[in-house]
Amino acid sequence: MNKNLLLVKKETVQEKLEKFADFGRTENNGVTRLALSEEDRLARDYFCDYCRKLGLKVEIDDMGNIYGTLAGARDKPPIVIGSHLDSVKKGGRFDGVLGVITGLEVIEALIENDITPQIPITVVNFTNEEGARFEPSMMSSGVLAGKFDKQDMMMSEDVDGVTFKEALDSINYVGSIENRLNDATAFLELHIEQGPVLDHHSISIGVVECVVGMVCYELEISGESNHAGTTPMNMRRDALFVANDLISSAREQLGRLDDQLVFTMGRMDVHPNIHTVIPNKVVFTIEARHKDPGVMKQVEAIIENLAKSPSRDIATIEIKKLWDRDTVWFEPRLRDAVEQAANALNYSNKRVVSGAGHDAQFIASYIPSTMIFVPSINGKSHMENEMTDIDDCVKGINVMLNTVLNLLEKN
Amino acid sequence: MNKNLLLVKKETVQEKLEKFADFGRTENNGVTRLALSEEDRLARDYFCDYCRKLGLKVEIDDMGNIYGTLAGARDKPPIVIGSHLDSVKKGGRFDGVLGVITGLEVIEALIENDITPQIPITVVNFTNEEGARFEPSMMSSGVLAGKFDKQDMMMSEDVDGVTFKEALDSINYVGSIENRLNDATAFLELHIEQGPVLDHHSISIGVVECVVGMVCYELEISGESNHAGTTPMNMRRDALFVANDLISSAREQLGRLDDQLVFTMGRMDVHPNIHTVIPNKVVFTIEARHKDPGVMKQVEAIIENLAKSPSRDIATIEIKKLWDRDTVWFEPRLRDAVEQAANALNYSNKRVVSGAGHDAQFIASYIPSTMIFVPSINGKSHMENEMTDIDDCVKGINVMLNTVLNLLEKN
Repeated sequence: MNKNLLLVKKETVQEKLEKFADFGRTENNGVTRLALSEEDRLARDYFCDYCRKLGLKVEIDDMGNIYGTLAGARDKPPIVIGSHLDSVKKGGRFDGVLGVITGLEVIEALIENDITPQIPITVVNFTNEEGARFEPSMMSSGVLAGKFDKQDMMMSEDVDGVTFKEALDSINYVGSIENRLNDATAFLELHIEQGPVLDHHSISIGVVECVVGMVCYELEISGESNHAGTTPMNMRRDALFVANDLISSAREQLGRLDDQLVFTMGRMDVHPNIHTVIPNKVVFTIEARHKDPGVMKQVEAIIENLAKSPSRDIATIEIKKLWDRDTVWFEPRLRDAVEQAANALNYSNKRVVSGAGHDAQFIASYIPSTMIFVPSINGKSHMENEMTDIDDCVKGINVMLNTVLNLLEKN
Repeated sequence: MNKNLLLVKKETVQEKLEKFADFGRTENNGVTRLALSEEDRLARDYFCDYCRKLGLKVEIDDMGNIYGTLAGARDKPPIVIGSHLDSVKKGGRFDGVLGVITGLEVIEALIENDITPQIPITVVNFTNEEGARFEPSMMSSGVLAGKFDKQDMMMSEDVDGVTFKEALDSINYVGSIENRLNDATAFLELHIEQGPVLDHHSISIGVVECVVGMVCYELEISGESNHAGTTPMNMRRDALFVANDLISSAREQLGRLDDQLVFTMGRMDVHPNIHTVIPNKVVFTIEARHKDPGVMKQVEAIIENLAKSPSRDIATIEIKKLWDRDTVWFEPRLRDAVEQAANALNYSNKRVVSGAGHDAQFIASYIPSTMIFVPSINGKSHMENEMTDIDDCVKGINVMLNTVLNLLEKN
């Protein structure tokens, strides 16, 4: 296969990254490009213009998703490559946009090498992946996949009370429902890892097996507030002490389950939160993720069993599952194609799971999909100092390009 | 001594409690009478009028403290009885005011029994004991005792930016510095216990030995925020996990020290406090109280040693002592007088310590002082459902009356 390998140019990748980073660049060299903001509009306009200059057919659907398509020799369902152009507030210059740039680079490489693909190639920008301005995240891929109700999404409001619908209208990106991504040969998303694994092991390419399943619980501990100076220890119903015991117990039990399990108590609120008053209420979350449903079942049993802790004599323990989601496995055939391309290019690579959510996990419900990860230095993302080495960006795009060439040969 | 015992009337005590509760009564039968508020002014006016009707000489000092004095046969330093009329927001009908009523009842009993005391008897209302509107608490007794600087106190602001000085002016309770409580034979304060010990043991009278020493630390744990889904457990620097370990360790060690030690982690703030983000910072307090300085030394050593926990490899641990105060021992001679009066009256009584702060602890620095506690049902205070049985209120006042009679015999 080595004779057929194509490579993209580092300069054009760098140029595109810089260009898109101008749309919402922060003073610390990060990006604030909230969905459907003026910065997002500018980035979209640039993207559309760029597609048109490449001779692509640009279409917009009713969620504002943008598709730029290079015609194929045959009119078959396209190979779709892409991600999202929106960012969180004070986010980085790679999250999302690198996957859109990857689509542009792949198409440009085909054009420059005078390759007319057997089937169309589409680069896509999904609207509002982050959910930072309008909840939920992965909104538009979710609507495409039938996970979210379009009318509900249209009414989602930002902090100023502006609805998604109003914002989409105002930047003039309302297209036709006919243009939605309905059928495709494959969907391929390149993304930064947003975790430290690849960077830690000095590996350039993550071959993503799945987006792991997760569950999130909220525990509410209700004791009794009393004066911290006058209430003997044995007459207290201290909600914080009980929360402390439950967290210790959960950590100890969950920690024994599996090395790949991650769990986090990220939110914790103490009431009344005064140093001289015994806490009467503590609310905290336990969130856990693992690819194996069997492990997740054990996780749920451990958390739900906390209700039977001896501490329930001291304070009441209410345990509520806020949500869960199953592991989404990517298409093995596509995953293997990515792995083969990385090996052919002689790039260090490793099978990984995605702990974070991505548009690909929704699209995977109706289109064969997979993802490619490139390293996040120190695992940082959603921060201005989010960073991926330019050489790794280029390697990731080269893997995508050669994966697509491989798929084209087979179609 | 039994032949000389005097008793107050339950009806007049009840009447006074109801009357004062009208000044700021809440819909749940509690009281909001913040220092120097309109409600406080009305209560002060009523108190002054009542004193004058009893024939007392009413004086006000520069902090707005009010003194009503029954002249004695000899012009010697008075026996002073009192507490405070201000309350916290949505507080109860007993905290503070019961001690002022006690002073009025004692003086009324002397008058009704045609007893001209050998030395003057003064009932006092200290301004702003609670510190609920203007920090700090025990402000005016603190100024009298030289613990707080008067000019600093005058500039203390409430949440609306009104200074203590402005508020004192506006309710027209600025008196003369010459009227300050400078010298007295004794200061005696009756107060609700604000803890559950007396109620739990069904004992009517607490003979208070001391206000216990206390120390308050703030611990700041600094780790690193990362994505909860993508960061393996062994690459985390989770500040909440470290805080959890330190709290467990502190509880375990402090719990072994002494039965009478109380300790509380009342305030805890987690950052960024998002369920999908590993906490990068947790700040929490550890506050502990005990009468024995030796025990308190051990407490401080345990807390300060937390900095050497193995967890310091995961996150940095900063430990800051916010403040401490030594145990204030009350005058043994006065404490014994209280105990004798309670025994003479055949009231169940018990030596207790005060875990809470009171004006008496500052006044004790320059005037022989002691306190009498009456039970708080279920230990509740600073709440609308704060409750002390009327019979216990009356018993407490009877103990005060007969303690004063006893002291008068000796002076």
